[in-house]
Amino acid sequence: MRIIIIGSVAAGTSVAAKARRNNIENEIVIYERDTDISYSVCGLPYYIGEEYITRENLNPRNSEWFKKRFDIDIKTGHEVIKIDSEKKELEIKNLQTGEIFCDSYDILVLATGAVPVRAKIEGIESENIFILRNIISADKIKKYIKKYKPVSAVIIGSGFIGMELAENLVKKGIQVSVIEAVGQVMPSYDYEMSSYIKKELIEHKVQVLTEEKVVKIDKQAGTILTDVGRAVAADMVILSAGVKPEVRLAVQAGIEIGSTGAIKVNRKMETSINGIYAVGDCAESYFLIDGTPCYRPMGSTANKTGRIVGDIITGGDLSFRGILGTGIVKVFDLTCGQTGYTETEAKKAGYDVEIIHNIKPNQTEYFEGSSEMVIKAVADRKSERLLGVQIIGKKGVDKRIDVFATAITFGAKVGDLAHLDLAYAPPYSTTKDPVMYTGMILENALNRGRKIITIQDLIKNRTSFTVIDVRSNKDFEKGHIEGAINIPLGNLKEKAMEFSKKESIVVHCNKGVTGNAAQNLLINLGFTNVYNLSGGYKEYKQETK
Amino acid sequence: MRIIIIGSVAAGTSVAAKARRNNIENEIVIYERDTDISYSVCGLPYYIGEEYITRENLNPRNSEWFKKRFDIDIKTGHEVIKIDSEKKELEIKNLQTGEIFCDSYDILVLATGAVPVRAKIEGIESENIFILRNIISADKIKKYIKKYKPVSAVIIGSGFIGMELAENLVKKGIQVSVIEAVGQVMPSYDYEMSSYIKKELIEHKVQVLTEEKVVKIDKQAGTILTDVGRAVAADMVILSAGVKPEVRLAVQAGIEIGSTGAIKVNRKMETSINGIYAVGDCAESYFLIDGTPCYRPMGSTANKTGRIVGDIITGGDLSFRGILGTGIVKVFDLTCGQTGYTETEAKKAGYDVEIIHNIKPNQTEYFEGSSEMVIKAVADRKSERLLGVQIIGKKGVDKRIDVFATAITFGAKVGDLAHLDLAYAPPYSTTKDPVMYTGMILENALNRGRKIITIQDLIKNRTSFTVIDVRSNKDFEKGHIEGAINIPLGNLKEKAMEFSKKESIVVHCNKGVTGNAAQNLLINLGFTNVYNLSGGYKEYKQETK
Repeated sequence: MRIIIIGSVAAGTSVAAKARRNNIENEIVIYERDTDISYSVCGLPYYIGEEYITRENLNPRNSEWFKKRFDIDIKTGHEVIKIDSEKKELEIKNLQTGEIFCDSYDILVLATGAVPVRAKIEGIESENIFILRNIISADKIKKYIKKYKPVSAVIIGSGFIGMELAENLVKKGIQVSVIEAVGQVMPSYDYEMSSYIKKELIEHKVQVLTEEKVVKIDKQAGTILTDVGRAVAADMVILSAGVKPEVRLAVQAGIEIGSTGAIKVNRKMETSINGIYAVGDCAESYFLIDGTPCYRPMGSTANKTGRIVGDIITGGDLSFRGILGTGIVKVFDLTCGQTGYTETEAKKAGYDVEIIHNIKPNQTEYFEGSSEMVIKAVADRKSERLLGVQIIGKKGVDKRIDVFATAITFGAKVGDLAHLDLAYAPPYSTTKDPVMYTGMILENALNRGRKIITIQDLIKNRTSFTVIDVRSNKDFEKGHIEGAINIPLGNLKEKAMEFSKKESIVVHCNKGVTGNAAQNLLINLGFTNVYNLSGGYKEYKQETK
Repeated sequence: MRIIIIGSVAAGTSVAAKARRNNIENEIVIYERDTDISYSVCGLPYYIGEEYITRENLNPRNSEWFKKRFDIDIKTGHEVIKIDSEKKELEIKNLQTGEIFCDSYDILVLATGAVPVRAKIEGIESENIFILRNIISADKIKKYIKKYKPVSAVIIGSGFIGMELAENLVKKGIQVSVIEAVGQVMPSYDYEMSSYIKKELIEHKVQVLTEEKVVKIDKQAGTILTDVGRAVAADMVILSAGVKPEVRLAVQAGIEIGSTGAIKVNRKMETSINGIYAVGDCAESYFLIDGTPCYRPMGSTANKTGRIVGDIITGGDLSFRGILGTGIVKVFDLTCGQTGYTETEAKKAGYDVEIIHNIKPNQTEYFEGSSEMVIKAVADRKSERLLGVQIIGKKGVDKRIDVFATAITFGAKVGDLAHLDLAYAPPYSTTKDPVMYTGMILENALNRGRKIITIQDLIKNRTSFTVIDVRSNKDFEKGHIEGAINIPLGNLKEKAMEFSKKESIVVHCNKGVTGNAAQNLLINLGFTNVYNLSGGYKEYKQETK
């Protein structure tokens, strides 16, 4: 059997390696347009910023290695220009010689990846405009920085690559501006969570411009112009406005494209044409929670789908179970992680959601180096399933995101989380882990009448609520929600009679715990409509400043 | 309703706080023998070693706080000396005045905790013999160190408290010896995993004596004597030989004690006597995987069971789902984590187990600060469920243990792990997380004939196997398994014909990956009995040195 794979970065080489592990009889050939293969795309921003990361680090394996280790033929510098799925034939162009030749396959795997979204901007073809998409383009950026020592750089787009680039260019001593067309950085996060990321950028002297579009790149002046008429210094510009699936070949071959714009595949990663599979960034994915098609190009998914197809085409029984859109990015000293649905996505998908914000230390607070995480969790009120989590903090974020991702994968209900037997010792966690607290707050909100209101919902309906701030008088004096009444928790029991038991009351403290105590007290006193403020005054300040 | 709780460290105060959150009508009284309440027992070793950790850090809440915040009466210095469960009455001694009085309850909760196991050793009553069990005893140790500046210390016992003490005494400049009666340190780990911990101790100049018992403490000479006639310098001695449940009151009251020696409870934490509950370190626990009773006194479980009982006695519907024995301990630069069954425990429990060792970096290897973890996983061959995991490494251990614990809780089969959508970016993980690799190796072993043999099984049956070392000639020359044949992977295909296809062959590389490639190759060539060596030569060296 002759297996041909188009593309050899993460997904393509995973297909080939797994197929070979399962079977040594098949011929396995990969055609690759570029010169580099099987490299770490995710490492590219760090390759630019860190001297210690070398080309060999990112790209330790070449065609010779694959030939020797796996008897896989990788033909770089070869572009497949046509698929004839009837005859099971390909037309291929040798990019060096220009020669065009045919090859035939029994099984074809498309691993054509993604291509950067290119905005239509005047002057975008200048030589100081870069797009980071492979090692060659990273090398261009590195060389430019070394040669021209740019003082300023503009990054267009603020997804995770944009964030990593910002940090790595700042490391190089460059004044960085990030320009994002929508109203927030890191658009995959809910707005208020992204505001923590924006703050971190600003603290590291990155200029952040949101809801602004670059309309012109003026190489001569060394500036860019935005649609609000602002000029921003830009000795170099990096386009990082996301990617779209590379589906040109698939379209030419008549393969069905999904609603997301990526190649439609079933759980066996089969395309609409028999014998043709698609993997990695060119293929559509499924949301694990409810099977909704989605497009989330990620290195981890590319590897996973590659391995699965490698297995399937050699007789294995693996299939793709879908994704949670789990992602993580380091933004200077912050770690930002997410898994499952955001509030925005969950609402859009039609869920009736319960939302909570939970601010907790990553480890025992008295232990050196302890720092806070802000955890936002989204649950489905009907099924009580956890739908998604976003976490921002300096430490311990990656751990909790992976625990939440695992729990969601197995269909965890919010009430399951507090029962987890997680590892506790002072250097690693708190006696009850933040994951457990998150579950407790959600369960209390869903099943025990401990309702939670988000800052945004409070602001929207401010006049409908009496707000009781149960912090100390001193804290209250330093700043408080407008119109809030200050009753420190210790005095609440006696003062409670001043309110009607049917009044809609929002209580809050600084981060939520004492607010919860106040809420319990009022509910136990017979109050019927008491909310605790999600994330407390701390989150309020973050969201309203 | 009058709720009386006996004991006020972690479990007792959790009961009280949760009961109050649910209901403000009940009277809640706690009797506590000691003076301190609600403190972090797990922080005590660090309180000894770190100047920056204060008494207030460990013990931020006193009786006044509980009275004011929760209207809970905590009577310290009061020992309950008798329970009359017929009359629902208690006899209590005020330890300060000697006065004895009665109190009556509607619901009684035993949170009497655990007491240190005291070995019978000559001279054990000397004043330089310490037991770390509460803040007062920690203060005694701190004062002794400050006043007498001991040069040497002996720690008797090597459980997690012993390990934390060793590190914290070394921080104080003390020459530490750890003496352990059984044949390994950290007896809750499988032997070969504990050997990594022993190595770490030795590297930090801790003298480690296993399979040795202290028989005499000679205060005069400043030494201890062991049962092999060894004298060890000991300006101070800390007994840390584990704890046993404090069940004297329960026994007096006629409450049933379980097979583990702790108070027997059902899933609602009810003892054998109606209206009496037990929580925390005095109560028996259940293994979540199969319901087997066990005794694992842990702060996290104490908090959990306390909260559950606080809910149950006020009409809530929580129940205890059992534990995985998840634990974590920092031993100098190492983190050692475990969850679920060890190999020893699983075999004892009657499982037919698959065992693998997986050596993997915590993050992308080219990223600064990357370091290796050794992961040992135990699976049930019959059900394919993951039963337990032990991990030793410098970084990322706590994350993977919590992910594994979560997966085991939800009944994960080994084949589920590779499908997890975990968070990947170079600073946090590898494209396939070590959790996923662990699942893949186990699944390949169970379902795809990629059998794994442990070092110990190979050693035991050495003559039954042909061992092929597929590393380079250079690595082979530096050291190899006796009698192994060196065939680098690249040459294996052509040399394979020299062996019989029915031969029992063990292949191995350094850590397992190339060994797996060799195994795949031989199996694909028609060999029927090929094992990959668990953990490779690296693990072999660790286990046999």
